[in-house]
Amino acid sequence: METRINVIENVKLKKPVLVEGLPGIGNVGRVAAGYLVSELKPKKFAELYSPHFLPLVVIHDNSLTHLLKCEFYYYKGKQNDLIILTGDTQSISPEGHYEICDKIIEFAKKLGVKEVITLGGFVQSTEIKEPRVIGAATNKDLIKKYEKFGIDFGKQHNIGTIVGATGLLLGLGNVYGIEGLCLMGETYDMPLFTDPKAADKILVVLKKIFNLKIDLSKLENTINEMESKMKKTETVYKKMIHQMPQKDDQIRYIG
Amino acid sequence: METRINVIENVKLKKPVLVEGLPGIGNVGRVAAGYLVSELKPKKFAELYSPHFLPLVVIHDNSLTHLLKCEFYYYKGKQNDLIILTGDTQSISPEGHYEICDKIIEFAKKLGVKEVITLGGFVQSTEIKEPRVIGAATNKDLIKKYEKFGIDFGKQHNIGTIVGATGLLLGLGNVYGIEGLCLMGETYDMPLFTDPKAADKILVVLKKIFNLKIDLSKLENTINEMESKMKKTETVYKKMIHQMPQKDDQIRYIG
Amino acid sequence: METRINVIENVKLKKPVLVEGLPGIGNVGRVAAGYLVSELKPKKFAELYSPHFLPLVVIHDNSLTHLLKCEFYYYKGKQNDLIILTGDTQSISPEGHYEICDKIIEFAKKLGVKEVITLGGFVQSTEIKEPRVIGAATNKDLIKKYEKFGIDFGKQHNIGTIVGATGLLLGLGNVYGIEGLCLMGETYDMPLFTDPKAADKILVVLKKIFNLKIDLSKLENTINEMESKMKKTETVYKKMIHQMPQKDDQIRYIG
Amino acid sequence: METRINVIENVKLKKPVLVEGLPGIGNVGRVAAGYLVSELKPKKFAELYSPHFLPLVVIHDNSLTHLLKCEFYYYKGKQNDLIILTGDTQSISPEGHYEICDKIIEFAKKLGVKEVITLGGFVQSTEIKEPRVIGAATNKDLIKKYEKFGIDFGKQHNIGTIVGATGLLLGLGNVYGIEGLCLMGETYDMPLFTDPKAADKILVVLKKIFNLKIDLSKLENTINEMESKMKKTETVYKKMIHQMPQKDDQIRYIG
Repeated sequence: METRINVIENVKLKKPVLVEGLPGIGNVGRVAAGYLVSELKPKKFAELYSPHFLPLVVIHDNSLTHLLKCEFYYYKGKQNDLIILTGDTQSISPEGHYEICDKIIEFAKKLGVKEVITLGGFVQSTEIKEPRVIGAATNKDLIKKYEKFGIDFGKQHNIGTIVGATGLLLGLGNVYGIEGLCLMGETYDMPLFTDPKAADKILVVLKKIFNLKIDLSKLENTINEMESKMKKTETVYKKMIHQMPQKDDQIRYIG
Repeated sequence: METRINVIENVKLKKPVLVEGLPGIGNVGRVAAGYLVSELKPKKFAELYSPHFLPLVVIHDNSLTHLLKCEFYYYKGKQNDLIILTGDTQSISPEGHYEICDKIIEFAKKLGVKEVITLGGFVQSTEIKEPRVIGAATNKDLIKKYEKFGIDFGKQHNIGTIVGATGLLLGLGNVYGIEGLCLMGETYDMPLFTDPKAADKILVVLKKIFNLKIDLSKLENTINEMESKMKKTETVYKKMIHQMPQKDDQIRYIG
Repeated sequence: METRINVIENVKLKKPVLVEGLPGIGNVGRVAAGYLVSELKPKKFAELYSPHFLPLVVIHDNSLTHLLKCEFYYYKGKQNDLIILTGDTQSISPEGHYEICDKIIEFAKKLGVKEVITLGGFVQSTEIKEPRVIGAATNKDLIKKYEKFGIDFGKQHNIGTIVGATGLLLGLGNVYGIEGLCLMGETYDMPLFTDPKAADKILVVLKKIFNLKIDLSKLENTINEMESKMKKTETVYKKMIHQMPQKDDQIRYIG
Repeated sequence: METRINVIENVKLKKPVLVEGLPGIGNVGRVAAGYLVSELKPKKFAELYSPHFLPLVVIHDNSLTHLLKCEFYYYKGKQNDLIILTGDTQSISPEGHYEICDKIIEFAKKLGVKEVITLGGFVQSTEIKEPRVIGAATNKDLIKKYEKFGIDFGKQHNIGTIVGATGLLLGLGNVYGIEGLCLMGETYDMPLFTDPKAADKILVVLKKIFNLKIDLSKLENTINEMESKMKKTETVYKKMIHQMPQKDDQIRYIG
C-alpha cells in the first residue's frame, strides 16, 4: 500500500499557496494551521492516508473511530487562494516522510501551487519570552519578498536542519519548481508541549502576508477549546512514544 | 513480494459481513473467531500470506510444516452470510498492518462486504469479574443498530486506540465505504495470556446479532482442546517476542 | 531494487530437485551444500543478488572484491537432476527472507522443480555425540517416501520453527505446488560455530537418497580447506553481528 | 518514492570513467572528490535524491534550505572524460544502499561508463604517518593496469569489507559489466574526523592515472576553506548520529 490522497471535491484555485502545519516541535505548526481552519472556516476537499502512520484508529468519546490522516482545506483569498494542510500525525519512518511529501507535492503541483509555506517550531535551549519567527526559504527572491513581514532571516541562529514534512515540502517542492518558505516560531524543547505563543507569532505573520481577517485575541481561548481534542491526540502521541523506538521520536516530533 | 490472498473457492455470498478475530490482547478476538469456526463449521475459501509475518514455518508434532497465514471461511447465514477471518499472526511491522488490511478490505469489497465486525480485547488495569463488551464504530447509525445487543458504547472508558487489524479494518474499510463495528471484551494485560471469559462475552453478542446456533457451554472445553494447538502457537509467539525488537511487541499484540 | 536472479546458462533439467544449504545454525546446511559442490563438481548456472543482503563487498587476499550472493548449480543425476543452492548469506530483514525465497521458488518452478530439500541445523541445548537428522516435510507422503533413509520424523523433539530460507522455501514452495523436505542436523547453539558432524550426517542421508558418489571421508579435510575461505566469511559475519541490531541476529542465523 | 536522478544537462561523453567520493571513513572519498570538483571545475549535469537519505533539509547561513543530495559532474579529459559523483550523504538503510547504487550504475551504464573508481578510507587501528593507498578491484586485469600508479594491492592487509556505495558500486557494477577499482587511503577510526592526508594520497594516484592538472599544494588550504561548509554538514551528521539508531552508524560511515 502506498500513501493515498482521497479527493472529496475537485477544486479550481486561484494562485493557490499551500500552507502546511502538522504535529511537531511544540505543536507550533499544527496549532497555527488548526487556528486558521477554525477562524477561516475553509472547506475540506481531500484527505491523505499513509502506511507510514501508526497502524491504529483512535476511539472518540462518542465511540466513533477515526483513522489517522492529514487533511487538505481550501480558502478563497483575495490575491491567493490558500490550501491549508493539517492533520493527526507525520510519518513514523524516514522513508515515509519522503513518500508522503512527494505525494503532497505532486498533488499540489496538479492544483497549480507555485509556493508552499510550512509552519514549525525552532528549538531554543531556554524559554523564550518574545519568540521570533525565524524564516528559511528555497531561494533569495522569496526572502526578499517576505522579509518585510517581520520574519527573521538573520544569521544569528546556528546551523540547523528542518526535519519531516516542514523541511521536505521545501526540499522536494524545490525539485519540482515550487518555491518554499518555512516559518519557525521560537520555542523550547519539551516533549508533548504545545506552545501557543510561538503559534501566535506565526499567525501574526501569515495574517499580514495574506491580509487575513482572523481574530488572534481568541487564540488562547480556542487553544483551550482545542485542548480536549488535543489532549486525546497527545495521549495517542504518548502511546506512540512508548510503542515506537526511541530513535524515531526525535525525528518524528521535529518539524 | 506483496501480501497475497490465495482464493481456494470462488464464492457468491448473500449480504456478507466480515468478522475478524486475529491474535491480540488476551487472544480475545482469535479465540472468539476460532470458536465460531469450530461451532459453525464454515468452509475455508481463501488464505492470506504476507512478507510482514515472521519469516518462518512452524513444525507440528506430526513433523509437518506450515507457513504462517490467515484464513477466510464463509458461513451461510439467515440474513447475512458470514466471512470469518482468523489466523496465526498479525504483521510484525507497522507498514505491514496497513498493507495486509488494505488487501483484506479490497478482497472483502469484491465479495460484496458492506460491513465488518472486528473482535479484540480492551485492556483494563485490574482483573475484570464481569467483562463488558465495549463497542466502537465508524458511524452513529451503526451504534444505534447494535446498541441493543448488550454492547457498551458509553463514554466511561478513557480515550483509547485500536491497534493492528482490529483497528485498521475499521479505518481503511471506512475509506472504501465499508461500515465497521469493533467489539472489545474487557480483559487485563498479561503477556501471552488467553482470556476465554472476554471471548465468551463477545460470542454472546455475536450469537444475538446473527441469531447463530452455537453452544457456548462448550467454550471452556473447546478452549482446552484448542490449548494444545494454541500452546504451540504461543510458543512461537514467545519466540517471536524474544526474536523481534521490543518496540513492536506492544503494537503487535494489541488488537 | 528487487532481489534478482542472473541466469548464466539456460538449462533443461530432468525431474530436478532443489537442494538448499545456506548459512545458519552451525553452518550445517551451508557446509553440507558446499561439500556437495566440492565433490559433485556441479556447474553454476545462476546467481542471486538482493538488497536484503548486507550492503558491502568482501575483499579477498588477491585484492579482488565480490558482492554477497547466492549461487545455483546443476548436477546431472541418475533419477533426478539436482539444483544446489548455496551462498554467502541470507536476508538481514524479515521481509527480505520472503522476497528472496519467493524469487527462488518462482525460478525453481520455471525450471520444473517439484520438490525442494532444505538443509539446516536443529539446536539442542547440550552437545550431541551422535547427531540425528531430524526431518520435517510439507505433507505425509513425503515423510513416507523418505523415512527409510535414516531421517527422524518422530515426535520426541519439542515444537519448533524453521526460520529463514530453510523454512520459507518449504512454506512458500507448498503454496506453489512444490513439495518440501527439511533435513536438520542436531547441533548445539554456539555463535559462528561450524559443525561438520551434523553436516556429515545430513550428507549420509542425501547420498542414500540420490545414490550419490561422494567420498565422505574427506569431509573433515575439505572443511579444513574450506576453513580459510570460511574464516573470511565468518569474519564478515562477525562484523555483521556488530553492525546489525541484535534483534535480527537470531533470526538471521537460524535456518 | 524511489531514488531519482534529475538530469540537468544531456551529455555525450568520451570513454567516461565514474569517480565516486561520498561521505565515509575520515571523509577521505568525499574530500578527494570534492577537491577534484574544486580544481577541475567540472560541470554539474545531474542530481540524485533518495527516500533513503535523512528526511530533512539543511538551513544555510543565508537562510536558504537545501535537500540532501548527490551530484554528478562531468570533466572533459584527454583519454577519458570523468564523471565525478559526490554529495551530502549516503543511504541510512541497508536496502537504500542497494537501491541508490543500482540507480547510479544504471545511469552510468546509459552514459557509456565501462569503469568506476570509488574512493574511501581504510581503517587502521593506529595513526598512520605515511598512509598508503590500498586498492581492490573487480578483476585481475584491472589490478595489472593500475598497480604501477602506487596503489598497494598486496596481501598484507587483513580480510576486509567495503561498506556502502564505495563497495556496492564495484559489486553491482560488476554484475552489469562495469569494471571497478576502489582506492582506499589508510586512516584511523575517529568519528566525524576528516583526514586530508589520506585524501591527498588518493589524489596523487588519480592525478597520475588521468594525467590531471591539479595543484595538490592547495589541498590543505582548500580543505580549510571547505571547513566552514564541512562543519555544517558534520553538524548535520552529528545530529544524524543522535537521531538514528546506533546500529546503522557504523554502516553509514564506512565507505
